[in-house]
Amino acid sequence: MNFIARPSGRAPDQLREVRIERAFTRHAEGSVLVSFGDTRVLCTASVENRVPGFLRGKGEGWVTAEYGMLPRATHTRSDREAARGKQGGRTLEIQRLIGRSLRACVDRGLLGERTITLDCDVLQADGGTRTAAITGAYVALVDAVQGLLDSRAIKPPSCNRQPIVGAVAAVSVGIYRGVPVLDLDYAEDSDCDTDMNVVMNDGGGFIELQGTAEGHAFRRDELDALLALADSGCTQLFAAQREALAR
Amino acid sequence: MNFIARPSGRAPDQLREVRIERAFTRHAEGSVLVSFGDTRVLCTASVENRVPGFLRGKGEGWVTAEYGMLPRATHTRSDREAARGKQGGRTLEIQRLIGRSLRACVDRGLLGERTITLDCDVLQADGGTRTAAITGAYVALVDAVQGLLDSRAIKPPSCNRQPIVGAVAAVSVGIYRGVPVLDLDYAEDSDCDTDMNVVMNDGGGFIELQGTAEGHAFRRDELDALLALADSGCTQLFAAQREALAR
Amino acid sequence: MNFIARPSGRAPDQLREVRIERAFTRHAEGSVLVSFGDTRVLCTASVENRVPGFLRGKGEGWVTAEYGMLPRATHTRSDREAARGKQGGRTLEIQRLIGRSLRACVDRGLLGERTITLDCDVLQADGGTRTAAITGAYVALVDAVQGLLDSRAIKPPSCNRQPIVGAVAAVSVGIYRGVPVLDLDYAEDSDCDTDMNVVMNDGGGFIELQGTAEGHAFRRDELDALLALADSGCTQLFAAQREALAR
Amino acid sequence: MNFIARPSGRAPDQLREVRIERAFTRHAEGSVLVSFGDTRVLCTASVENRVPGFLRGKGEGWVTAEYGMLPRATHTRSDREAARGKQGGRTLEIQRLIGRSLRACVDRGLLGERTITLDCDVLQADGGTRTAAITGAYVALVDAVQGLLDSRAIKPPSCNRQPIVGAVAAVSVGIYRGVPVLDLDYAEDSDCDTDMNVVMNDGGGFIELQGTAEGHAFRRDELDALLALADSGCTQLFAAQREALAR
Amino acid sequence: MNFIARPSGRAPDQLREVRIERAFTRHAEGSVLVSFGDTRVLCTASVENRVPGFLRGKGEGWVTAEYGMLPRATHTRSDREAARGKQGGRTLEIQRLIGRSLRACVDRGLLGERTITLDCDVLQADGGTRTAAITGAYVALVDAVQGLLDSRAIKPPSCNRQPIVGAVAAVSVGIYRGVPVLDLDYAEDSDCDTDMNVVMNDGGGFIELQGTAEGHAFRRDELDALLALADSGCTQLFAAQREALAR
Amino acid sequence: MNFIARPSGRAPDQLREVRIERAFTRHAEGSVLVSFGDTRVLCTASVENRVPGFLRGKGEGWVTAEYGMLPRATHTRSDREAARGKQGGRTLEIQRLIGRSLRACVDRGLLGERTITLDCDVLQADGGTRTAAITGAYVALVDAVQGLLDSRAIKPPSCNRQPIVGAVAAVSVGIYRGVPVLDLDYAEDSDCDTDMNVVMNDGGGFIELQGTAEGHAFRRDELDALLALADSGCTQLFAAQREALAR
Repeated sequence: MNFIARPSGRAPDQLREVRIERAFTRHAEGSVLVSFGDTRVLCTASVENRVPGFLRGKGEGWVTAEYGMLPRATHTRSDREAARGKQGGRTLEIQRLIGRSLRACVDRGLLGERTITLDCDVLQADGGTRTAAITGAYVALVDAVQGLLDSRAIKPPSCNRQPIVGAVAAVSVGIYRGVPVLDLDYAEDSDCDTDMNVVMNDGGGFIELQGTAEGHAFRRDELDALLALADSGCTQLFAAQREALAR
Repeated sequence: MNFIARPSGRAPDQLREVRIERAFTRHAEGSVLVSFGDTRVLCTASVENRVPGFLRGKGEGWVTAEYGMLPRATHTRSDREAARGKQGGRTLEIQRLIGRSLRACVDRGLLGERTITLDCDVLQADGGTRTAAITGAYVALVDAVQGLLDSRAIKPPSCNRQPIVGAVAAVSVGIYRGVPVLDLDYAEDSDCDTDMNVVMNDGGGFIELQGTAEGHAFRRDELDALLALADSGCTQLFAAQREALAR
Repeated sequence: MNFIARPSGRAPDQLREVRIERAFTRHAEGSVLVSFGDTRVLCTASVENRVPGFLRGKGEGWVTAEYGMLPRATHTRSDREAARGKQGGRTLEIQRLIGRSLRACVDRGLLGERTITLDCDVLQADGGTRTAAITGAYVALVDAVQGLLDSRAIKPPSCNRQPIVGAVAAVSVGIYRGVPVLDLDYAEDSDCDTDMNVVMNDGGGFIELQGTAEGHAFRRDELDALLALADSGCTQLFAAQREALAR
Repeated sequence: MNFIARPSGRAPDQLREVRIERAFTRHAEGSVLVSFGDTRVLCTASVENRVPGFLRGKGEGWVTAEYGMLPRATHTRSDREAARGKQGGRTLEIQRLIGRSLRACVDRGLLGERTITLDCDVLQADGGTRTAAITGAYVALVDAVQGLLDSRAIKPPSCNRQPIVGAVAAVSVGIYRGVPVLDLDYAEDSDCDTDMNVVMNDGGGFIELQGTAEGHAFRRDELDALLALADSGCTQLFAAQREALAR
Repeated sequence: MNFIARPSGRAPDQLREVRIERAFTRHAEGSVLVSFGDTRVLCTASVENRVPGFLRGKGEGWVTAEYGMLPRATHTRSDREAARGKQGGRTLEIQRLIGRSLRACVDRGLLGERTITLDCDVLQADGGTRTAAITGAYVALVDAVQGLLDSRAIKPPSCNRQPIVGAVAAVSVGIYRGVPVLDLDYAEDSDCDTDMNVVMNDGGGFIELQGTAEGHAFRRDELDALLALADSGCTQLFAAQREALAR
Repeated sequence: MNFIARPSGRAPDQLREVRIERAFTRHAEGSVLVSFGDTRVLCTASVENRVPGFLRGKGEGWVTAEYGMLPRATHTRSDREAARGKQGGRTLEIQRLIGRSLRACVDRGLLGERTITLDCDVLQADGGTRTAAITGAYVALVDAVQGLLDSRAIKPPSCNRQPIVGAVAAVSVGIYRGVPVLDLDYAEDSDCDTDMNVVMNDGGGFIELQGTAEGHAFRRDELDALLALADSGCTQLFAAQREALAR
């Protein structure tokens, strides 16, 4: 791997410090403050005893997500979406991604007719808010499902089926000044050629890949390097999730 | 004062624990996490070098506020206003109140053509979010103005004029089970006859009074008792603000 | 009381001429054109046999209000809210105030599952539109409830319970050039330090207090003077309501 | 003409009582309360010293209209468009018609870069609100233009050019139970086969024709009868306008 | 008829080339691409087994229309209404017209509780989009109803009642440089004094007349000439519809 | 490659029939009807002499896209986004993807301060609308840029710089019943485990990768197979684009 000076001084394959703080607020069934360095996202999981219309009467549950950014989470203040009267395309795109990613780790047939909503609100942004959100929302989701199990609202898992079928984590990778790097911060993200968000499960499978060439198109060998970095980053994130859940 | 069992066990004239944590996030010119017990509001002050149309070219500044509640700040999840496509009446009412209250402590002629926006986002709600927001936003505003003074963006205050002309704090009071009490939490707020939000300055003057009889109308003597409680509560809040700013 | 030249030549404690004209339009169950001097508000009460979702099946009724201002009710034309696509914060704040105030005079348990909507539309504005609206809407509400009683849609009141539990009226007070005055018109309102809207019932109780210091904060003795003026103003308004209802 | 029992007892070619009350409110440059029987519309003309973007810099003026219906102008309460967040198709259609009709009587080159907005708000509806609105708005427009002439804001008319180039009035006609009738009220409008709104100028020319067959299609001879009725109705309306303007 | 040079070289009473192409897309129950010269509108008829609330339980059907224009159907790109967040007044006016016109040719009692929605989307505009839309939507509607008959979803027509009670077509007429002309194209439409859209049935009756004097008001004799042209135009359009349906 | 019965009978690595029809409508600077089998998308390129605010005065151009689906492009009618009052998340996501993809093939510095908007409207949907849209929009963009070159609005390309820096095409790939397949149609798309949209340039570089595991997560070897299929598909699409442009 080439020599490169990342703005943060990190090695190319080095994550930022990851912190996962459970029970950050007290009303939600799951509430996690996740930090990837200076990026801090509050992820809450809310359980409601109803499902969207298209699932009514089918006996299965739903998992969905909403994403927001506090107006001054960023370097300069951005408009409050509630005041503008609509969520922007970026917001909708991210919350759809979070929802799909988390649905990939749930056996919805075991949830009963319940909706679990994952609200991911960015308190402070420094790049990688969507990957931090997915990684933290997983922990909030596990706490919410555990609550349902503890209260016997849903049946305890058998050896064959469990409501949570695997862990999900996400990380960004990109090519910064010609070098593939892991977990881009804002300084890198705003000055890189290519970035990709990778959502994986702890079985090593890919759940979502979203790569964008902002500068020049990326070659196949670059893609391979990025995927390897993502794989190593997610492995570390799964460990951080397990550790947080064990506390 | 009558005997009364407040759900929290507090004395009728007792505030909840007040905490004011400065520099909670790092991008905003002022960033305060204020807690009144379990009510936690993130107040950021953002400085922008422009003013609304009606002030353009007049050489004076503007102070305004926006208010939001994270969907799961409350006991049950409420809709995200950005997703619903509009801010509700309660939100607009509160943010107008916060804006008016903070403008009351600023000499806008000394700000230059700048807007300071106070974003008050409720991370966790347990009653009194608007009074906590005003109390915390004052501290964020002072930090933002101090930053302008430090960078010489605005002239240093003279003995005659200072950009911040006094402190502002707010507290709720109400009649709970027949007894006037200070700083209602959610359990009291949802079960009280009358509640009033009082915004004061540190000269003992009233900036805003908003009293509502939810059950029976309140008599003049009850009003007097409530105002006395509010006065004593604000005195303690001014001390907490001064202490936080001195740190 | 100090000498003061009010723009209208009124004494400090003098209301504008109050007129309450019932049956101004013919479709609504109650229809009142109320005038506080040049401020003219059309208040209609509409009865519908349904309640909002949160009351369904509880056997009680609902009273709510909507407020609007014709675009050219004011000195310069303002945008039509329907064309702008949303009601402004001031509108929402006022209609919430009107709704709360009128609910304070109704025993909703006697209404049955009905909603009474009070539409208050300002035909001409000269200050005090919300207080005129509340004062007039009360009369429209009484007419609508009387219609329900006359048609036996709701049971006749017993000595213990009546659907209308008391009268409600509202008036503004303020400090104009240092002197507390009653019932501010537009010229005073746009040039005063403090103004307060006071909603009272005819038992002398306060239903709503909304005081705002636009210039300097108001002292406790000023507040006392304002409350005394409001009390005297509401007493006159209750008389005007009774007289209108007796016609 | 066949024998027919109109619900109101009117002869087939008889207008409802028409009243045109000028200066109904005091802020607008023109303010007319027009009544066609129980249909009552407040028409105000507001002059502003600006034009829409597409006319900027061209030295000519603009005339436009907005239409609204108070929620309880009708037999049953309809939603407030400002609260629903948009104007309905019927509202937009009507205000476009009013705007086009009034522009047809103005020499916009003589107005200078000014916009005259005609706000037509229905206080009470009993059929024919758009035709009453056009007929009344014409009078409000004349008053507003006369004010501009009186204040010398626009040049006095020469023998060749005047800002108002002719009168405009409108009336509805329809086929009610097989008989062509003039000026339909609500009872007729909701039970007729065909209705047509006709806007004419006082030179006998047609400005707008909007005919709709609600039941069966109308034949050419029916159309001819309707046009003759409309012509006679407008003649009476022009007289009423002239009389009102002469007062 | 006077000599006149129409921009297209057509005779005053000459339609543009009319083409009606059925089954243009394959999902809709009826799908017609109609061309009036360079004006091309895709009209689809969609059948759904539900009716609007006001018809529920009445056993009859509903026919409605929606209209749209692709952003670059016109000479210069216009905003996409979906992106602007609302349909303009012109759009709403046109789709209401199309819906009323098509309802005039259907016996809704024979449709059962079904809604047929006619989506008319303009791919290319050169004047007369609403008349082309009505003319084409009729053919799509016939195909959709025939499908319902073929599948026995609705009862086969008896000699007394058929679901389609007659044909509907529409054409524009106008006075271009003093001469009444048929089927205005864009060059004529943007430079004519008067234009009128006429919707007729094949029994010679008028369903809708919408005439607007854009320049000077039109006289009765001009109206008569326009109606005669429209009658002749619609006769040709009925032939084109029949021919398309026979293919 | 395994044996597999694709619903269409195609081989796993076989594209649907691709047709690219230029000049489909006549007003736009580029107008292409692209078909991938039964998926038909009208792509127009519109040139306007203005740029968004963030680019004003920088001397470079902008390329953006909007996407829409006619309500009955699909098997069952979907709501018209203009009528619902907002574009859905899927629409916004797709149009952002199209815009980014096309910007990747343009040297915006050579466009001057112009915006080229690519409107991609789906006339008929059978899976793969976004990939067809990108492939067709490229051809429309080339036509629009050629028009600017032909009219000397922008400078002719030198050997070093050309406004179009390469071709862009897109195709979907997925794992259908365990087998990697190219260019999914609707029947496959709604029943597959994984699908990925791949945007490439004709230098073999990746511009966008968007892969989603709908059923089980995909392994690295599956990803490799999909990327190989996409590469082969894009190669064929570049040939089809070149052929269409040569006509």
